Amino acid sequence: MQATAQIGVTGLAVMGRNLARNFARHGYTVAVHNRTPARTEALVEEFGHEGAFVAAGTAEELVAALERPRRLMIMVQAGAATDAVIEEFAPLLESGDMIIDGGNAHFTDTRRRERSLRERGIHFVGVGVSGGEEGALNGPSIMPGGSPESYAALGPMFEKISAKVDGEPCATHIGTDGAGHFVKMVHNGIEYADMQLIGEAYDLLRQVAGLSPAAIAEIFREWNKGRLDSYLIEITAEVLSHVDAATGKPFVDVVADAAGQKGTGRWTVQTALDLGSPVTAVAQATFARAASGQSALRAAYRGLPGGTRWDLTPYEVERFTAQVEQALYASKVIAYDQGWKMILDAAEEFGWEIDLGAVAKIWRGGCIVRAAFLDRIRAAYAADPGLLSLVSDGGFAAEIADAQVPWREVIATAARRGVPVPAFSASLSYYDSLRADRLPAALTQGQRDYFGAHTYRRVDREGSFHTLWGTADRAETEA
Amino acid sequence: MQATAQIGVTGLAVMGRNLARNFARHGYTVAVHNRTPARTEALVEEFGHEGAFVAAGTAEELVAALERPRRLMIMVQAGAATDAVIEEFAPLLESGDMIIDGGNAHFTDTRRRERSLRERGIHFVGVGVSGGEEGALNGPSIMPGGSPESYAALGPMFEKISAKVDGEPCATHIGTDGAGHFVKMVHNGIEYADMQLIGEAYDLLRQVAGLSPAAIAEIFREWNKGRLDSYLIEITAEVLSHVDAATGKPFVDVVADAAGQKGTGRWTVQTALDLGSPVTAVAQATFARAASGQSALRAAYRGLPGGTRWDLTPYEVERFTAQVEQALYASKVIAYDQGWKMILDAAEEFGWEIDLGAVAKIWRGGCIVRAAFLDRIRAAYAADPGLLSLVSDGGFAAEIADAQVPWREVIATAARRGVPVPAFSASLSYYDSLRADRLPAALTQGQRDYFGAHTYRRVDREGSFHTLWGTADRAETEA
Repeated sequence: MQATAQIGVTGLAVMGRNLARNFARHGYTVAVHNRTPARTEALVEEFGHEGAFVAAGTAEELVAALERPRRLMIMVQAGAATDAVIEEFAPLLESGDMIIDGGNAHFTDTRRRERSLRERGIHFVGVGVSGGEEGALNGPSIMPGGSPESYAALGPMFEKISAKVDGEPCATHIGTDGAGHFVKMVHNGIEYADMQLIGEAYDLLRQVAGLSPAAIAEIFREWNKGRLDSYLIEITAEVLSHVDAATGKPFVDVVADAAGQKGTGRWTVQTALDLGSPVTAVAQATFARAASGQSALRAAYRGLPGGTRWDLTPYEVERFTAQVEQALYASKVIAYDQGWKMILDAAEEFGWEIDLGAVAKIWRGGCIVRAAFLDRIRAAYAADPGLLSLVSDGGFAAEIADAQVPWREVIATAARRGVPVPAFSASLSYYDSLRADRLPAALTQGQRDYFGAHTYRRVDREGSFHTLWGTADRAETEA
Repeated sequence: MQATAQIGVTGLAVMGRNLARNFARHGYTVAVHNRTPARTEALVEEFGHEGAFVAAGTAEELVAALERPRRLMIMVQAGAATDAVIEEFAPLLESGDMIIDGGNAHFTDTRRRERSLRERGIHFVGVGVSGGEEGALNGPSIMPGGSPESYAALGPMFEKISAKVDGEPCATHIGTDGAGHFVKMVHNGIEYADMQLIGEAYDLLRQVAGLSPAAIAEIFREWNKGRLDSYLIEITAEVLSHVDAATGKPFVDVVADAAGQKGTGRWTVQTALDLGSPVTAVAQATFARAASGQSALRAAYRGLPGGTRWDLTPYEVERFTAQVEQALYASKVIAYDQGWKMILDAAEEFGWEIDLGAVAKIWRGGCIVRAAFLDRIRAAYAADPGLLSLVSDGGFAAEIADAQVPWREVIATAARRGVPVPAFSASLSYYDSLRADRLPAALTQGQRDYFGAHTYRRVDREGSFHTLWGTADRAETEA
């Protein structure tokens, strides 16, 4: 077998197959391989006309088909399967070759694998690929980690097959080792938050303003022409305007209201807890999905007394709708800011040099959170590469300032009406916590010192202190 | 050396020393051992008059001093040190002996150790001990896991040294393997939530009602005479009324407002995410501590525009104070209910038979969350052992119903005034989510089906469904 292929793909389930076709359609010779050869043959038979494929029957044949340094992409289930495939191929490779994991690996696994393969002279490249099956075929957003040397060899190919926005590719080198999978995880966490915020906006328009799904779909279509312009807003309008053929009812009313998850939202929150990054909107979104599936608990709570109901006049409906747009937008800025800060915290923890503006740039297309909004974030970082928070950008700051009254009124209304707004509230509380001059965390520290002698710091001098709470004069000691 | 001791303790830092003294004061002969013998000698020298101690210089001596079956308690740092001590002692023990871990181990480590030692014929008993140094000496709340056989041998001793409430011990067998450490972890998570709720109540009284720390301390003293009667409310009044000697200012104003943590709140939330148990109040409390320590981020947000300020009349202050009490109480019921449900979910996941009423009973004394409230929970389970949620208890349900308007008004006021109330809001949103007839999770499922073909269930018939969103007629298929 001649070494003619620029890239090999092993694992030809739908994501692997579509990525292989995407490479081939862009002029690359792609060696393809699957544990069960029938899939390999089916791919070549069905899509062979799209480009140059080399069907490899065995691992050895796949490796033999690759140009050096070899680029071998594994597209198998995250976890033990990935380790097994790595162990199958690594002995067949040579120093300088690359193993690319395009699955949804946990970034700590990617860090472990990168370290282990580096010792064997092999570049291990964990790549976040967003956009699902359709994106894999027609242009995903691609977030590669790994060494700069590996990106020199892989980057041009990733950039070629990625989504394009304004002629620019949605692929860039994120950082070393697990940085790519980390940023993909945070993307998914932000996606959870964004979807939950949209769900709360819908619920408010339905419960408070009394609007139908069809009428709310029209509102989302309007919003999609403005600063909220995004894929998720667009498909929300599609889902809400869809009518169930079997019943003639709005589709959203016949779907069971128990949301599923695949785990990346959960990973994001668990990792954020370790980093001390307060991604409260993602947390509330993830728990909202969990709560929706707690059917026995919902049965126990259902019908308990709630807020006060009142009807809105047409004028009030219009005003409330505009307020919800402001609340949704402000909450979204905060939710994204939480995700951005989490990336910054991780970069410091793991020694990654991550260009946050570039992350915004490659999320503008291909992925689920793609939005006009991300170009605004890109521009904010272009203006100030050292930006610590989106609220430090003049444009976002002005919008947040403008949203103050409506944002707060919407949350106050939700509380009084009994509409659950966990992510809206979490975003506002985060904003109010961080802008506060003083937080009740000082009381928390006092309590901890009282019951556990955990000590505290003072605002007026350095050091750790403990008050002798059990004594009559409660003197302060320096720890 | 004669085998005269009923229990051995290795690891004589303050917790181990105080537990050893507690056993000795209750008439048990206690063999004591420490890696550095100086600590063993110091203990016997200083506290030998309190009871019968046997100083053991080596691991072998410690084991030789114990009656059979041996009860060996290890009180060392959680993690690798625990494993090392287990490996040091296990070879010296015989079938039927017990190793008791009274440290703050993660329950998954306890499960692993229990399984491994069971194969060697040794009972491994992970015990949650709450109440800090003072509790360890004078009566902690004790949560032992492990086998029923081990509890038969250990329970009477634990019950004897534990705190007592109404003459009943604050110790009971929680469940097998890691159940004790799990419940202790949830205790700490609930403690985080309770402290955050108290902090928010204080912040509201300070910011909205304009009251001084001393005036707020008086309010907490009043509350402590009612249904909020608890150790945490009591010490809140103590901390708030304390005046800093150096400056003459309220103590709470000279303490740095960045709250620390030791990790059990974080563990609780991370575990809850895996279980699908939405402990949102604990999550918000944990993230609030993290946010308070994000100093650079706080600098970026500080001074951004917030809510509208207005002054309250004395009558309004009084009314608002009563509303905050209602909001605090209702939020506390929900926060505890979240913790209780998490224990139920874990019991199902790990096969534990946990008596939730007994958990409430042993938390009434010795531990940080001890409160009159817990006797109410105990009584609710006594009336209905199968209680799924506290809100299904008539008494709690009536109180929650009564709190509706004030609870909602407090959160609406906080939003409008710009006071952060992450845990209050999370509790209300949880309540409103669970009692809702329909949740926007249906929209979430529609979106997921649209962009990822994740399928959905219907409300009107069984099965998994997928809509062909990309086609003109958007037909529904059964997956």
